[in-house]
Amino acid sequence: HEVIGVDLMFVSYALVLLILLAIAAEQRHVPSSVAAISAGAVLGGVLRLTGADRDRDLLLRSVIFFDEELFVYVLLPPIIFEAGFSTSRHHFFSNLFTILLYAVVGTIATAILIALACQLAGQAGWFRVGDEDALDFSSPKDACLFGALISATDPVATLSIMGAYSVDPLMYTVVAGESVLNDAVAIVLVRILSDLKADAFGHPAALIFGVWKFISISAGSLAVGVAVAAPSAMLLRRVDLSHHAAFELSLLLLFGYCAYVTSEVLHCSGSESRPHPPRHGTPTPRDGTPP
Amino acid sequence: HEVIGVDLMFVSYALVLLILLAIAAEQRHVPSSVAAISAGAVLGGVLRLTGADRDRDLLLRSVIFFDEELFVYVLLPPIIFEAGFSTSRHHFFSNLFTILLYAVVGTIATAILIALACQLAGQAGWFRVGDEDALDFSSPKDACLFGALISATDPVATLSIMGAYSVDPLMYTVVAGESVLNDAVAIVLVRILSDLKADAFGHPAALIFGVWKFISISAGSLAVGVAVAAPSAMLLRRVDLSHHAAFELSLLLLFGYCAYVTSEVLHCSGSESRPHPPRHGTPTPRDGTPP
Repeated sequence: HEVIGVDLMFVSYALVLLILLAIAAEQRHVPSSVAAISAGAVLGGVLRLTGADRDRDLLLRSVIFFDEELFVYVLLPPIIFEAGFSTSRHHFFSNLFTILLYAVVGTIATAILIALACQLAGQAGWFRVGDEDALDFSSPKDACLFGALISATDPVATLSIMGAYSVDPLMYTVVAGESVLNDAVAIVLVRILSDLKADAFGHPAALIFGVWKFISISAGSLAVGVAVAAPSAMLLRRVDLSHHAAFELSLLLLFGYCAYVTSEVLHCSGSESRPHPPRHGTPTPRDGTPP
Repeated sequence: HEVIGVDLMFVSYALVLLILLAIAAEQRHVPSSVAAISAGAVLGGVLRLTGADRDRDLLLRSVIFFDEELFVYVLLPPIIFEAGFSTSRHHFFSNLFTILLYAVVGTIATAILIALACQLAGQAGWFRVGDEDALDFSSPKDACLFGALISATDPVATLSIMGAYSVDPLMYTVVAGESVLNDAVAIVLVRILSDLKADAFGHPAALIFGVWKFISISAGSLAVGVAVAAPSAMLLRRVDLSHHAAFELSLLLLFGYCAYVTSEVLHCSGSESRPHPPRHGTPTPRDGTPP
């Protein structure tokens, strides 16, 4: 009880400092994400150098160490929901084929290219070898995982520059749509690769298994998304929520979370199965181009 | 990992059903809190009658059973924050003495009266005796705890009727202000009583200890609240947040949570130490009388 309280106390004060840092960075025209990543790198470096990361009795252990459940069930869902909610449905669906081409084929091609480059560099001995923890890309699995992990680009800076110079809306839509879907593709790739054994790489059966897994996870997630979105859309149309703003907002967020967590429980990727915003009433906050 | 996912999945679907129930209830002019409590009582009764509450391997155990940490650190803070945030500062502070009289003296008097009534009824044998779980008020501690638990009235219906018939603003302010503070008084009372041993009741030392504890917790909570609120108010005045709406909202909520969790860690009651809304810019949402 007390330990959780102390951890939460430090987390809330740390978040206050992080927001102040982000404000200070943006006033100097540095993106707040750059400031946040730098602060994290400095803190991680200090923990590493002082050896605190090997201390099992550390007070703030539950805060400092990455908790996958917290990430999957609390931090990731709102990010995915926001991406889907702020995408213009009209532009997205009228360019679906192009977007899918970039998001699926493009992301997989990027992952393979990075994996090959890492493996070649690893075989050439460019990385530190020997240390147990070292990522020396000695196994193809490491190289493929790294390639999948960094294949999904997040073109925040590109999109804001595009918005500022008002480029062709088609260009904007394709880049924005791709950035929404490529995360899902990368997550599925990483999950498939993590499930493969290290010696399965290079075996043709692994490739067939991977392709099958990719198609089944994508189709399964889409099916869950439709199965949750269809009744929720019908419900939101039929029930009069005009005097219940709080209930409407709660239902909207809950339906998204229902789809996500159902998909997660069924071992699919939740990020492809969020329902799109309901089609009644107000337009989506961002409509193709950012404000 | 999967167990948490399944639990969260059922919780999110259950919340959707609960909101639909609340909407259906309000359309029939039944308060949604009545509907929620009734649904909880029915579900609890079913679990009790089927014996599911004694099943230690139950799938949804983490959902069904009351988790004090979840309550203290997640569910309670927003309720307290909302109460403080929507209170009109002007009306509250200009009637502080009257409000404190009702909130502190009134709540303690109510708790004592209920405790005495319960103890007399218990000694007269009005309650089922013998079963291990039975609340037969055989000990003064049980009676006092029960009195403290139900002493804080939540005059939601009273306030909405007062708002609808636009009564004297002073009357409204005193009832609303009392309802904000009496929860804190009841929480402190329950904590002090829980810490006392069963045989300490009736002993004069226990009374002195209780009074001392009550004063020290109240003063400590107030000190934490001021210690967090003063620098946060200065910060919100100095930092220009006009282009950072998301940061402003986050800071506002975080400062409240900082005060709450600090106070909680220092074993005070968090509910007296939330900072009041900052004094720059927009007025509070509700200003004495509800919309």
